[in-house]
Amino acid sequence: MAARSVHVHIENARSNASIFHITPKRWKAACARHHALARRLQVTIGWDGDMLDEALATAQVVVGVPQRRDNLSARAPALRWLHATSAGVDGYLPLDWLPAGVAFTNNRGAHGVKAEQFMCMAYTMLHTRMPQILANQHAHRWEQLFSPTLAGRTALIVGLGDLGEGAARAARKLGLRVIGVRRTARKSRFADAVHPYGKLEKLLPTADFVVLAVPLTPETCNLLSRKRLALMNAAAGVINISRAGVADHVALAEKLQRGELAGAVLDVVDPEPLPADSPLWGVPNLIITPHISCDDGAHYVDISLDLWFENLAHFLHDKPLRQRVDPQRGY
Amino acid sequence: MAARSVHVHIENARSNASIFHITPKRWKAACARHHALARRLQVTIGWDGDMLDEALATAQVVVGVPQRRDNLSARAPALRWLHATSAGVDGYLPLDWLPAGVAFTNNRGAHGVKAEQFMCMAYTMLHTRMPQILANQHAHRWEQLFSPTLAGRTALIVGLGDLGEGAARAARKLGLRVIGVRRTARKSRFADAVHPYGKLEKLLPTADFVVLAVPLTPETCNLLSRKRLALMNAAAGVINISRAGVADHVALAEKLQRGELAGAVLDVVDPEPLPADSPLWGVPNLIITPHISCDDGAHYVDISLDLWFENLAHFLHDKPLRQRVDPQRGY
Repeated sequence: MAARSVHVHIENARSNASIFHITPKRWKAACARHHALARRLQVTIGWDGDMLDEALATAQVVVGVPQRRDNLSARAPALRWLHATSAGVDGYLPLDWLPAGVAFTNNRGAHGVKAEQFMCMAYTMLHTRMPQILANQHAHRWEQLFSPTLAGRTALIVGLGDLGEGAARAARKLGLRVIGVRRTARKSRFADAVHPYGKLEKLLPTADFVVLAVPLTPETCNLLSRKRLALMNAAAGVINISRAGVADHVALAEKLQRGELAGAVLDVVDPEPLPADSPLWGVPNLIITPHISCDDGAHYVDISLDLWFENLAHFLHDKPLRQRVDPQRGY
Repeated sequence: MAARSVHVHIENARSNASIFHITPKRWKAACARHHALARRLQVTIGWDGDMLDEALATAQVVVGVPQRRDNLSARAPALRWLHATSAGVDGYLPLDWLPAGVAFTNNRGAHGVKAEQFMCMAYTMLHTRMPQILANQHAHRWEQLFSPTLAGRTALIVGLGDLGEGAARAARKLGLRVIGVRRTARKSRFADAVHPYGKLEKLLPTADFVVLAVPLTPETCNLLSRKRLALMNAAAGVINISRAGVADHVALAEKLQRGELAGAVLDVVDPEPLPADSPLWGVPNLIITPHISCDDGAHYVDISLDLWFENLAHFLHDKPLRQRVDPQRGY
């Protein structure tokens, strides 16, 4: 391979949990799995901008969105591809800082299997009344709260990307009926039916579970609003594995307090970390998990770099990149 | 059908939770589903022995083991078949009260689907460190405890009856390797390998999950003893959905206290109900569920009577009954 080499700069943030760090060791392991592609790369690995401007001067590809993004056209004249190491890019919207001609991709596709397993647990915890059983354990109270199997219940899954399809596969494994809701009515092989967002009001009263798996964009902000929450069945549950902003968590907490919902599992809250004095911690029948539902704690970087190397093959052959973020849609 | 009618006496215990009560309404619904068989029956339904001796005088079949079981040969001269409405019959052992010639059956087969769904949850709760995450929620503490997917971990399932096979199916759905342990080494289509009890010492160190799904008999009493618990991996978990007596829960609690096990889910304890002052309630990384893992809270009697009616067809045609309890084995 006599082709010219490509400068890839990897930008890490120490404020991210360590499972997300692309360390030299993890990078080397990924290169060993993709050696034919890897030997065409010149790589720099930076932390919190420690070598950012020097690297940007020549980098054609950047992995990890830098904290400082002003004036990128001038600072990164060779840049053609910027890759976010997360699936959600809501923290970078609007994309007015992105130079024209730079492809922006995200890490969708790295979360589905973990999401599926978390969702198997979340559906079953809500259905088997685990929030109440756990509260009873804390109070040293034995109370036989029985529940039927999940078969025949309905999961309304909002968003059918990597996370939503994981939630749908979990639902199928437990015998649930799966109704998907997304921007378009495009079908999914894991859903019994798919409707556009506009049908939410009609669908919410039929759901036993409402699962939030959409990216946070101007269009999905407060999608499960107070008014829409009011349409839900009192025996139903809510599970949010996307972003806090897509649902009105204050209204949700009030409904739980009043017993107007059976329970909820929130893997995302606002802000994160949730402060110790947040009233959300103690809401009855609410389970809070610390944004861990969909990230593989042992293999996140491996999975992500494998996806990235697949895309690198497209890049090196001047084929259209996968996982591109549409600046208009915001995901 | 000119055949003579059969007197079936149904004996209910009010001390059982109401989901287990064979009420006239549930009985009638089952008869409607099995009308050809049902019209050959004369039925009496009693509660806590209120009409037991009168009914036993002529009953050929009794559903529900009576509390008073002395001198049954004389009190129930026509009795040919006694059916327990639970799968576990450990409370009736030894079977020295059972008259010779009376077939004794249990309710195995009614619990598998519910067990499978509970086990999907239990594996994932332990694997995703939910006991610690729930303790953190109680303490208003945000701590990102990540975990990988379950793929490739090993579930060691002790007992491969209705419950154990449910636990095995759940494990398969989550990508676990399934090693079964039972009295014999007879294969199961849901297990990658099956070994006899004698191999437990060898297998325990290899398990990420040890699932107890055996009936309690003299042979299985204290099967997961203190000595055997000591062979387990500190990152592993224990799930007991059978009977408290099959494991040393005191030794288990001590191991959890010392951090020598990752966690446990106990759906069975001794005694039940667990008294408020039991130290078990507060053991770290232990989740106690109130004996609800395997009983369908809406359809238990329906499922059970459907199985019973299938067996009734055998009875009426003088074929060998299914689900017979072997008095020697004790299940």
